[in-house]
Amino acid sequence: MKARDHFRAPAKLKLRDKDADRAPLEPGKDEEKARMEALSERIATLQTMLLAERKRKVLVVLQGIDTAGKDGAMRALFKGINPIGLRPVAFKAPTEAELERDYLWRVHREVPKAGEIAIFNRSHYEEVLVPLVHGTIKPAECKRRYAQIRDFERLLAETGTVIVKIFLHISRDEQRERLQARLDEPEKRWKFDPQDLKERELWNQYQKAYEDAIAATDADHAPWYVVPANSKPHRNVAVASLLLETLESMKLKWPEPAPELLKLQVR
Amino acid sequence: MKARDHFRAPAKLKLRDKDADRAPLEPGKDEEKARMEALSERIATLQTMLLAERKRKVLVVLQGIDTAGKDGAMRALFKGINPIGLRPVAFKAPTEAELERDYLWRVHREVPKAGEIAIFNRSHYEEVLVPLVHGTIKPAECKRRYAQIRDFERLLAETGTVIVKIFLHISRDEQRERLQARLDEPEKRWKFDPQDLKERELWNQYQKAYEDAIAATDADHAPWYVVPANSKPHRNVAVASLLLETLESMKLKWPEPAPELLKLQVR
Repeated sequence: MKARDHFRAPAKLKLRDKDADRAPLEPGKDEEKARMEALSERIATLQTMLLAERKRKVLVVLQGIDTAGKDGAMRALFKGINPIGLRPVAFKAPTEAELERDYLWRVHREVPKAGEIAIFNRSHYEEVLVPLVHGTIKPAECKRRYAQIRDFERLLAETGTVIVKIFLHISRDEQRERLQARLDEPEKRWKFDPQDLKERELWNQYQKAYEDAIAATDADHAPWYVVPANSKPHRNVAVASLLLETLESMKLKWPEPAPELLKLQVR
Repeated sequence: MKARDHFRAPAKLKLRDKDADRAPLEPGKDEEKARMEALSERIATLQTMLLAERKRKVLVVLQGIDTAGKDGAMRALFKGINPIGLRPVAFKAPTEAELERDYLWRVHREVPKAGEIAIFNRSHYEEVLVPLVHGTIKPAECKRRYAQIRDFERLLAETGTVIVKIFLHISRDEQRERLQARLDEPEKRWKFDPQDLKERELWNQYQKAYEDAIAATDADHAPWYVVPANSKPHRNVAVASLLLETLESMKLKWPEPAPELLKLQVR
């Protein structure tokens, strides 16, 4: 079964802790390595064709609660893939200059250019999810933003951007373990932010907000995929499979060479 | 012997074709894989420490004649290294907006931020080398630009940027083979630019221009390394070794955690 069919968000999404473990494609650690190498190799070829075509663009949006594995999934994707034409973008808390514009301004500046795959680590969805959960926007404003986001993503799709939105789904227990690991392990501690504990108290509100956001913004030209992410190998294989299948669906070809090039001899 | 000592540009650099083959660290294809994995793993840890420290920056400049392997070296570096905090920047022919400013403007915009390693694929050096070889600037202007570049790189170094400049050195024969491969192999053809053949005719002028540029801008705070690059495995290991040794020289440490974090339990 195609990952794109398997992970596609249902019309009425319900995020349950137990689904974060569900891992029908679950490989072991060794098998992950072999599968990721095979996937990467095929992605690398198609990505180079995309770059050679220099016309269409690909946008991968990675979303998920703190510790869901957005960085890890991104790192796994980069292995073996040409970094030229693959651009990671991490959206942090907005700067002052960014706050002085509408919330899509900074996102629009970072959209992929022709031939490029941009991978967003967090995105414009944070600007609905966070204020909604913290009660700083009302449901009516929230609805308005979903409509704005739908319009924005349609603009991108209609102008040649293929969009893939991935929600990395972990359980509440898994998050506890991962946050504790950040506290306990010196090489992870720098990632710990005490604010993460405050956000964790809002777990249920975030799950609900994600369900609504995904349902409100899923579209065939900007589909949402929900990837069980308690298992890191499974998550990596799933994300790479989604990207590969997306690239395959684009029917990329090497550009036709100018005929006079074919008989050139370099001296 | 340290790669940093081995490859450091001599005061009077003479680029000879036969030195492009010189490969004292030459590994076979399999050995390259093992060595690159070992190097990448150590680079990845130090890079994460740099990110955690969020204070100093690293700038790697890759230069070399067409087909010297700048893209390939970059791709090899990215394998196994956290893409967050590692940013590739490819400088193409300047845009109109860029031409309306001084030639360091667009370069300054792309310098690494705290915690980041930026890898420049071509750089401000193009703005001396290309016009000099094409005769559109005079030797006096060229000298002025070297001084401007020295000043710019000193500013970066004095404000916390560790600079590594690498010249990938291939021979004239090797370039012929690589350009021919771009013509003959469909998956490489998109990289072929007929202009490359015109530039190849200026081979001797470019070698001379590189020798002068490297001699004029080598400094202990912005050292030039000359890496024999006819062999791709050798080139990759050399570039990774230079980056690793540079990171090692920075004596990075995991930041001290706030004491109250050490006894936190996540619930």
